[in-house]
Amino acid sequence: MKQDKKISSDSPDFVASLAGGLSVLLTFDENHSTMTLSEVAERTNMDRAKARRYLLTLHALGYVHKDKRQFKLSPKTLSLGASYLSSVHHHDIIQFYLERVTEQTGESCSFAVLDGDEIVYIARSAAQHRLLSIAIAIGTRLPVAYTSMGRIILANLPQEELEAQLSNLELSAHTPNSITDPKIFAQMLKDAKKQQYAVVDQELDSGLRSLALPVYKSNNELIGAINISTNAMRISQDVLIETFLPLLRDCAEKIQTYYI
Amino acid sequence: MKQDKKISSDSPDFVASLAGGLSVLLTFDENHSTMTLSEVAERTNMDRAKARRYLLTLHALGYVHKDKRQFKLSPKTLSLGASYLSSVHHHDIIQFYLERVTEQTGESCSFAVLDGDEIVYIARSAAQHRLLSIAIAIGTRLPVAYTSMGRIILANLPQEELEAQLSNLELSAHTPNSITDPKIFAQMLKDAKKQQYAVVDQELDSGLRSLALPVYKSNNELIGAINISTNAMRISQDVLIETFLPLLRDCAEKIQTYYI
Repeated sequence: MKQDKKISSDSPDFVASLAGGLSVLLTFDENHSTMTLSEVAERTNMDRAKARRYLLTLHALGYVHKDKRQFKLSPKTLSLGASYLSSVHHHDIIQFYLERVTEQTGESCSFAVLDGDEIVYIARSAAQHRLLSIAIAIGTRLPVAYTSMGRIILANLPQEELEAQLSNLELSAHTPNSITDPKIFAQMLKDAKKQQYAVVDQELDSGLRSLALPVYKSNNELIGAINISTNAMRISQDVLIETFLPLLRDCAEKIQTYYI
Repeated sequence: MKQDKKISSDSPDFVASLAGGLSVLLTFDENHSTMTLSEVAERTNMDRAKARRYLLTLHALGYVHKDKRQFKLSPKTLSLGASYLSSVHHHDIIQFYLERVTEQTGESCSFAVLDGDEIVYIARSAAQHRLLSIAIAIGTRLPVAYTSMGRIILANLPQEELEAQLSNLELSAHTPNSITDPKIFAQMLKDAKKQQYAVVDQELDSGLRSLALPVYKSNNELIGAINISTNAMRISQDVLIETFLPLLRDCAEKIQTYYI
């Protein structure tokens, strides 16, 4: 979908208190799941009076729970994304095939789409509890440049969109392995496009190695990507390519048959 | 968490435009995934000027996509619930064990918690595509009274909370099978509590039969419930109880070992 121009935050049409309330919701995360008013005000950079009104309104609407001075998100916040998820066609099918890959490989398998300069996890089949794992939920966002799904999506963008992405991309190191040279990065995308898969080896987090494939509609429109993510100490690049790639390819083909 | 009293929508602290903006997000659903401004205004019962400002603000913030006159939700809406999901402890573990039940039974298996008079789906393992299925995503809300997970949660509530729930509960028929007599309903909850499982047989939708068990922390605090949902034409009540109940019980026990 080609995007229309956005209004700016100083437009008379911009509803600042809607933006403020949403930023209060977003400030809760894994490490800040329960906060006081002061903590919310501090983390959102808001004065206490504003933060208080947003919190009390979100509480009245059922989006946050309040226990004395402590606020935390309620499961109602999931409703805000549920309508997006239910509009993802064949979500159950995607989930089913991801789970089959996890069965076959013992590793986590995910589906993500591009949104701005991040990928967003839409479906995920988690491997059995591993000592090394990054906590990923549906809705988790990761930088497009340092994820295998992000790279294979970038690699397959139309030239004009790719250039727009590359001009905005921040190539900053997450680990000693992270590629930060724009020329090497561009070459990796070319290789990924040619091979039609991308491997990211410990560039986002040490020990994290993953393999991704693009997912298309039958009209060749890119929908998103699927990946297998593994522990680099257990799974070599060779196993990833020789054993896992055919299984993941089969998964992508199965999913694509539903997108007529 | 015991809940503090909520402010009302006519309180001077209530931010009406935050509530309005959120109701715009919520008005998108499976059957209304793409809407014009007029459609949003009509469905939210808002004047066009207000609906327009909320839509343009949500567009500026990246929560809706706009293509000419058409608006639709973007995957960024998932971020609003992602922090809730990442605060659900052991989400990956729950997902893993749900998937194992699907492997063993070939049926969908879910985990839900209570929120108001509805249950909210937090994790789900979907069965392979079936002709009969209701579309359920993470964040989907269903009425507590007519779901097996809702009933087993109700059955296990402390007496005071249960009475509060029952006094608000709307027992209205979804199918000819739906129990609507409050006395029979209360007796079913008593039976469910005694057996420590609940079966709901085609009371929410014809052909839908499901079995649920409660999930506890080790201090006996109720966390939520898990269920297996099946097609009544394929799976009899006998199979549900004799074959599936032990598998689901094993799943609940496995999950509970992580909640020390």
